[in-house]
Amino acid sequence: MDTKNPNPAYGAHLEPFHGIPTFMRRPASRELEGIDAAIVGVPFDSGTSYRSGTRFGPRKIREASLLLWGFNAVLGVAPVDALEIVDYGDVEVIPVDISATMGAITTEVGAILEQGVTVVSLGGDHSITLPLLRAHAARFGPLAVIHFDSHPDTWKSEFREHPYSHGTPFRRALEEELIDTDAYVQVGIRGPVSASHDLEDARQLGAQMLTIDRAFEMGILGVVEAIRDAVGDRPAYVSLDIDSVDPAYAPGTGTPEVGGFTSYQMLQLVRGLQGLNLVGYDLVEVSPPYDHSDITAILAANLTFEFLSLLALTKRKEGQ
Amino acid sequence: MDTKNPNPAYGAHLEPFHGIPTFMRRPASRELEGIDAAIVGVPFDSGTSYRSGTRFGPRKIREASLLLWGFNAVLGVAPVDALEIVDYGDVEVIPVDISATMGAITTEVGAILEQGVTVVSLGGDHSITLPLLRAHAARFGPLAVIHFDSHPDTWKSEFREHPYSHGTPFRRALEEELIDTDAYVQVGIRGPVSASHDLEDARQLGAQMLTIDRAFEMGILGVVEAIRDAVGDRPAYVSLDIDSVDPAYAPGTGTPEVGGFTSYQMLQLVRGLQGLNLVGYDLVEVSPPYDHSDITAILAANLTFEFLSLLALTKRKEGQ
Amino acid sequence: MDTKNPNPAYGAHLEPFHGIPTFMRRPASRELEGIDAAIVGVPFDSGTSYRSGTRFGPRKIREASLLLWGFNAVLGVAPVDALEIVDYGDVEVIPVDISATMGAITTEVGAILEQGVTVVSLGGDHSITLPLLRAHAARFGPLAVIHFDSHPDTWKSEFREHPYSHGTPFRRALEEELIDTDAYVQVGIRGPVSASHDLEDARQLGAQMLTIDRAFEMGILGVVEAIRDAVGDRPAYVSLDIDSVDPAYAPGTGTPEVGGFTSYQMLQLVRGLQGLNLVGYDLVEVSPPYDHSDITAILAANLTFEFLSLLALTKRKEGQ
Amino acid sequence: MDTKNPNPAYGAHLEPFHGIPTFMRRPASRELEGIDAAIVGVPFDSGTSYRSGTRFGPRKIREASLLLWGFNAVLGVAPVDALEIVDYGDVEVIPVDISATMGAITTEVGAILEQGVTVVSLGGDHSITLPLLRAHAARFGPLAVIHFDSHPDTWKSEFREHPYSHGTPFRRALEEELIDTDAYVQVGIRGPVSASHDLEDARQLGAQMLTIDRAFEMGILGVVEAIRDAVGDRPAYVSLDIDSVDPAYAPGTGTPEVGGFTSYQMLQLVRGLQGLNLVGYDLVEVSPPYDHSDITAILAANLTFEFLSLLALTKRKEGQ
Amino acid sequence: MDTKNPNPAYGAHLEPFHGIPTFMRRPASRELEGIDAAIVGVPFDSGTSYRSGTRFGPRKIREASLLLWGFNAVLGVAPVDALEIVDYGDVEVIPVDISATMGAITTEVGAILEQGVTVVSLGGDHSITLPLLRAHAARFGPLAVIHFDSHPDTWKSEFREHPYSHGTPFRRALEEELIDTDAYVQVGIRGPVSASHDLEDARQLGAQMLTIDRAFEMGILGVVEAIRDAVGDRPAYVSLDIDSVDPAYAPGTGTPEVGGFTSYQMLQLVRGLQGLNLVGYDLVEVSPPYDHSDITAILAANLTFEFLSLLALTKRKEGQ
Amino acid sequence: MDTKNPNPAYGAHLEPFHGIPTFMRRPASRELEGIDAAIVGVPFDSGTSYRSGTRFGPRKIREASLLLWGFNAVLGVAPVDALEIVDYGDVEVIPVDISATMGAITTEVGAILEQGVTVVSLGGDHSITLPLLRAHAARFGPLAVIHFDSHPDTWKSEFREHPYSHGTPFRRALEEELIDTDAYVQVGIRGPVSASHDLEDARQLGAQMLTIDRAFEMGILGVVEAIRDAVGDRPAYVSLDIDSVDPAYAPGTGTPEVGGFTSYQMLQLVRGLQGLNLVGYDLVEVSPPYDHSDITAILAANLTFEFLSLLALTKRKEGQ
Repeated sequence: MDTKNPNPAYGAHLEPFHGIPTFMRRPASRELEGIDAAIVGVPFDSGTSYRSGTRFGPRKIREASLLLWGFNAVLGVAPVDALEIVDYGDVEVIPVDISATMGAITTEVGAILEQGVTVVSLGGDHSITLPLLRAHAARFGPLAVIHFDSHPDTWKSEFREHPYSHGTPFRRALEEELIDTDAYVQVGIRGPVSASHDLEDARQLGAQMLTIDRAFEMGILGVVEAIRDAVGDRPAYVSLDIDSVDPAYAPGTGTPEVGGFTSYQMLQLVRGLQGLNLVGYDLVEVSPPYDHSDITAILAANLTFEFLSLLALTKRKEGQ
Repeated sequence: MDTKNPNPAYGAHLEPFHGIPTFMRRPASRELEGIDAAIVGVPFDSGTSYRSGTRFGPRKIREASLLLWGFNAVLGVAPVDALEIVDYGDVEVIPVDISATMGAITTEVGAILEQGVTVVSLGGDHSITLPLLRAHAARFGPLAVIHFDSHPDTWKSEFREHPYSHGTPFRRALEEELIDTDAYVQVGIRGPVSASHDLEDARQLGAQMLTIDRAFEMGILGVVEAIRDAVGDRPAYVSLDIDSVDPAYAPGTGTPEVGGFTSYQMLQLVRGLQGLNLVGYDLVEVSPPYDHSDITAILAANLTFEFLSLLALTKRKEGQ
Repeated sequence: MDTKNPNPAYGAHLEPFHGIPTFMRRPASRELEGIDAAIVGVPFDSGTSYRSGTRFGPRKIREASLLLWGFNAVLGVAPVDALEIVDYGDVEVIPVDISATMGAITTEVGAILEQGVTVVSLGGDHSITLPLLRAHAARFGPLAVIHFDSHPDTWKSEFREHPYSHGTPFRRALEEELIDTDAYVQVGIRGPVSASHDLEDARQLGAQMLTIDRAFEMGILGVVEAIRDAVGDRPAYVSLDIDSVDPAYAPGTGTPEVGGFTSYQMLQLVRGLQGLNLVGYDLVEVSPPYDHSDITAILAANLTFEFLSLLALTKRKEGQ
Repeated sequence: MDTKNPNPAYGAHLEPFHGIPTFMRRPASRELEGIDAAIVGVPFDSGTSYRSGTRFGPRKIREASLLLWGFNAVLGVAPVDALEIVDYGDVEVIPVDISATMGAITTEVGAILEQGVTVVSLGGDHSITLPLLRAHAARFGPLAVIHFDSHPDTWKSEFREHPYSHGTPFRRALEEELIDTDAYVQVGIRGPVSASHDLEDARQLGAQMLTIDRAFEMGILGVVEAIRDAVGDRPAYVSLDIDSVDPAYAPGTGTPEVGGFTSYQMLQLVRGLQGLNLVGYDLVEVSPPYDHSDITAILAANLTFEFLSLLALTKRKEGQ
Repeated sequence: MDTKNPNPAYGAHLEPFHGIPTFMRRPASRELEGIDAAIVGVPFDSGTSYRSGTRFGPRKIREASLLLWGFNAVLGVAPVDALEIVDYGDVEVIPVDISATMGAITTEVGAILEQGVTVVSLGGDHSITLPLLRAHAARFGPLAVIHFDSHPDTWKSEFREHPYSHGTPFRRALEEELIDTDAYVQVGIRGPVSASHDLEDARQLGAQMLTIDRAFEMGILGVVEAIRDAVGDRPAYVSLDIDSVDPAYAPGTGTPEVGGFTSYQMLQLVRGLQGLNLVGYDLVEVSPPYDHSDITAILAANLTFEFLSLLALTKRKEGQ
Repeated sequence: MDTKNPNPAYGAHLEPFHGIPTFMRRPASRELEGIDAAIVGVPFDSGTSYRSGTRFGPRKIREASLLLWGFNAVLGVAPVDALEIVDYGDVEVIPVDISATMGAITTEVGAILEQGVTVVSLGGDHSITLPLLRAHAARFGPLAVIHFDSHPDTWKSEFREHPYSHGTPFRRALEEELIDTDAYVQVGIRGPVSASHDLEDARQLGAQMLTIDRAFEMGILGVVEAIRDAVGDRPAYVSLDIDSVDPAYAPGTGTPEVGGFTSYQMLQLVRGLQGLNLVGYDLVEVSPPYDHSDITAILAANLTFEFLSLLALTKRKEGQ
């Protein structure tokens, strides 16, 4: 019997089509005593500039996670054994009120972090990253940020003068000094932009930008090296917009950009962060109504599994 | 040559798969001089409590409208000949800011009404009806309202204490005295409600509620009679939530309720409004990502065509 | 705070897109002390003769149940307030072994019944009804059975000589004398059958068959009357194959038959069972891969909500 | 062993998911000696004014036909036992050349009719009915025509001046005197038309038009009576456009019109033709790319099964 | 205010989900005075040998184009600022008459070219390229042709002896000497062919064929070099069949061939044409009914954006 | 006339949308005299641990095969000309009885092999490979096995203690000594596994495992070399699980694993087997309900075409 998952309704030993889908069948619980990591859904989708639907991202990624058999054969670790993980459920977002939603995210996630639990967030659109960074920076100080995306998300404003949306979180975070500009790497940027100065703006704000062209020139291992060099041993936050991956691999998203990473390359990129001082993570922009056969959600679940594996390796190393 | 539609790119004589989809190939124009009716899209979908996606409603209904051959054989009128109609395009909504959005709707639609043009609004979720009612009541005074829906939409608040959403517009409108409570008819209400007093609340607020059970007992013609009796010759606003129709006929919506009207019944209900003093109309809650083969959008286009036919009959009668 | 649902991860007060989908946000629990009813998933789909996929039925119906706001305005009761309900999770079925699966169902459901808990089962294909009837008959004796279906499911065998499948459960149950043949009503039977004697066979085995033609002649209220007459105060089991409903309303099923009930008629049929001595229920044959926009799952959730409402009314009456 | 179907690859005894889909597992054969009826596919879709895709109609209806268990319990006959039926395969149509295609249809179908075989045609769009009527009228003289449709298909031309398309076949047939204008009934006509005189034109050309409004007033049995009265014992051809049915029941079609028949009503209408002198049949406008879960194709297969049952009843009666 | 797009109904400043979808919100106009490029839809899909549906290609690519933010960061140019572009709407094609359709295309496009406007055509199936080449060759003489495709499209005939279809345009164009055989490059050819001599035929007719195997051996930059060497400064026409891309990246097409280019490679190929003397372009074979989440249409819009960027660079250079 | 395909209903000369879909229009026949290869469907899907639906794999792959024009331009051979091929139809599987199903497969396929016919099997889930290996080993002795997959399928048991399922066939085959452990190569293994020893178990049982990481390091040609080295001239069986390919290219499968091969790489891998002593083949795990636009089925048809081409080359060489 799985003592870590005492509720048989979750059925950790069951086939993936059985039972109630918490993330990897971890207990649905907000008891955080002794917990290493909490899966936190943030189903907010009003910040998008094109297709909505990411409000169903957390639920669908949880369902897809049941396919994850448990042991990471590449990294040699079983994160659900090595770590005590709970599925915290979702932050209660308010679709018509981004300010209240951001406040709730920062408060609720802040309280989890207070208890020494790593938060693994599942979006939702990219606007949720600003309140997540606020909560993390409050605990860890300005953060190294590894930002996988096809868009820099550093617009001054979107929706006319509105400061908050999925196109602006990193500019706000930079303005609020939540990010350590010596260690802010954007990876995968591509596609048409709104003005000639968009990419230059992002760079001037402090982003080390690896466009997709640059990334393909460097090779994935080169990109990994560049990230590691920039981040060093700083506390690092990973923000993974699924649209960094090509729409062939991740069609279920709101503002797809063609010409992106393959799923294999994305797995390599996340695995490449092994050993960094990882303090936070979000995976955003999975929009299930636009997915097919859940391939985007399955990819998102796998990438999150890789991140949990990295946390598990760190814990194991610390335990030695 | 179609003198009313001088731009060949619209191609009023074309097959439905040709060309750029304005509503029924009316000119995309904001010149309102001499115009009888304007199609106005309101692509706001942040107010929904379940599935988003209605932001694509106006676009898809326009596309479906190209199937409408033009002459209404039941009512004996061709609305695009009898009326001067333009496709005004969309109000510029802001997904993260419902207050700004509502302000923009009221202002922009108010300005159209000022010019004596009837506004035919395509949503978007039902939260848009409050600002639409504000604009119409400002011009016409408290309105008779014919409200087709499976939900009363008279909650005190939704999303915790938030006053604005797709579950509250009619309570707000009643509080603001935009609706003439002697002539507010709700038709098609059904399904589980959030509390035992929900329906009673709506009635106490002034709604004459014809639940689906009552409607089926009375028969469609009986419902029509009841509506006509209640409305009389008051200036009447029609708010048609597509979820009043059964999900078999209208799957593409955000909060479907089983056990509703057929498409034929809904057509009869709209046609039954013939001769009333119709001053406004919205059709809301069409969510294309959840539609299949556009059957919901096609139904919405047809219902709007019927409403335009009613306007045309009135104009013809006035012209005699 | 919702004392009946102490785990905030379920979020009984949340919007339907929030959180982890247990049935109507009831606790995922196998603690049955003081419980009135348990939702039990039975995700077995190997018994079907055409499309598989019903293994995802329980999960998807749970998800759709989050749309059920709680109070049944027609029947005047809130089942989740009136009853203590848990979501038991799923019986662990084995797709390649129907005998082991049937054994597990009978055993596990029998144990729940032992504790005085009503079992509300969500399939899965119709083959699961045989072991469910075994468990219920063991406790209640031969059962009155109200069987909504387009097929009689009384074939001698299917898949050559195999006794167990979704086409045979009621013949097996009749042979095993699990059903009181004075009170076995089939409702909605229609479509091509495999042999001229199929329907006659079912009748000779003891079914009172109301074909769809007969049902439409009698009217829904007439059908309700006939059911009530046949069942009387016997302990009654309801088996609802979603393909009794027309594919327009329930496309997500394995062997659809055109020419069936509307969703409204089906709601009336279930509500019509009010006051009967209802001891068991299954809703089977929802196949999510063939559904669209979840309309079949939403209908299934609503029908189950109606059944729970009937249980609640009975409990309230008994409590008086 | 099924001596009528000697090729085990067809597997007449198999489950519907097994084997190669000929219509109801009849032999794929062009040997017509002793054959009563031939299923003939006509996969032409260039004649449509909106959505194409009916070229996949015959294939998908064949696949759906495997669900038809064989015995018609309402009519009391098993058409595949009572009749010798082959699946002839498809006429080789040429998408870019409607004239050559029409020629091929008339020639090929004419040759089948020559051998005393009834042709049961599966479209394809409605343009194929003109060459089918030519072939049938060549053998049987001017035909009584029972035409189920939402559109009269009697336009003078479509696609500018082009005489052939899916909107014109019945005007051409009337001009060519293929139809006995004393016995031409259109059933189900509805929706916007292109000009005020469209319906009047059809009537003046000789159609007895039962619009959907008229049909619902008369009731289905009244419609049946009217058809029988008009047709009498004339040789009668049935042309069934699937868009006569409401899009909720038949979404997979090219030019859907809301407000139509239910599947049950359509079954009643076809069954109501029992005993007429039926000499030909086509079922057209099933467009699988726009279908979902094959509900349109399944309905089409069932309607064709009903028609075959009528032929079987006639043969049985003649055999007595 | 955007003086180039005076009609606010287009809303050049709007979010992608707002408004009426002309290509990149360019004016829907046939006034060509001072215009550099015209987007011309050619919604003809009768020429396909497998799946139809490309008649909806132009409309859907226009819709997808609203996601193109405007500035090409790789090439350093904003085509909609650098060029005066209109959306001309569609050529009025006739599905049942390929000859009339081809005539209309040649005439209408020829008239646009006469005014010195570059035509950017959106198909439609590949049969439209023959009349497009006729119009361009009439103005520019025999053309260098850069032909991206998985099929050579040089069959002698298709559909038995019919000369026109989507499998024959380049043989016809070669026979008519519309193509300069010193500068005709086919890129991406692969998959089963109809006869052993198919590819050799294409070569003998004058195609320099880079099969996918050859292309992958050479690398994308090698392919670019080979194209540039072949084309030189000749007037060059680009014909881009979306099935040159792998179905993973472009599922929405009529005759998909596995084993093709990625979206990134295709972007590189188009960008590689920078500086050539580009006089015409078509993008064909996007079939929206077979697309999912519009990924094919989005890719097509992006590739067209890259082509417009090349035109913009040339104009900028000429302006210096 | 195609003397090899005398039944015009198959229409070997037809366009892909015409006619009844046997594999590549080969005769549906069980006459095996003089036949080189038989296409055999095995539509069993109860062995899957996640999504069912592969029971429709054989039918859909047959349909997709009609797109295969016939001549393999890379390998220089037309398999349907070089080989006498029949479409044998499907083995009659029993979804509720895996043991009876396995027995039927071994018996029926064994009988085909007895007649010297190569069996090309289309699944169905991977559990069918065990009885296929039994039949082949009975004829050829222990087999070299080339196993393309993302999972080793060497679990001791699945579904608790059940020995047979889609996760165990290769362990059973190894235990039964059906496989020559000197020549068993697994290619493409990746993704989370159920225990730390899973991959090591497979290796200890005798598999030479090329994980996806290893395969990408070696390059496809290196993998081909390794396979050829291991297999030598032993009788070799190819088992191709479509989930070896990335879900972007093959979404229609039951247990997708991200990070896999592209379609081009998979084609190269199959072509790389040229000249080996190939005695059997299965392609499994294509699940059409989860496919989109048939891209998975089309890939499966192409891979099977490549395998048939290899057989044809061998026959040609032997004939010299």
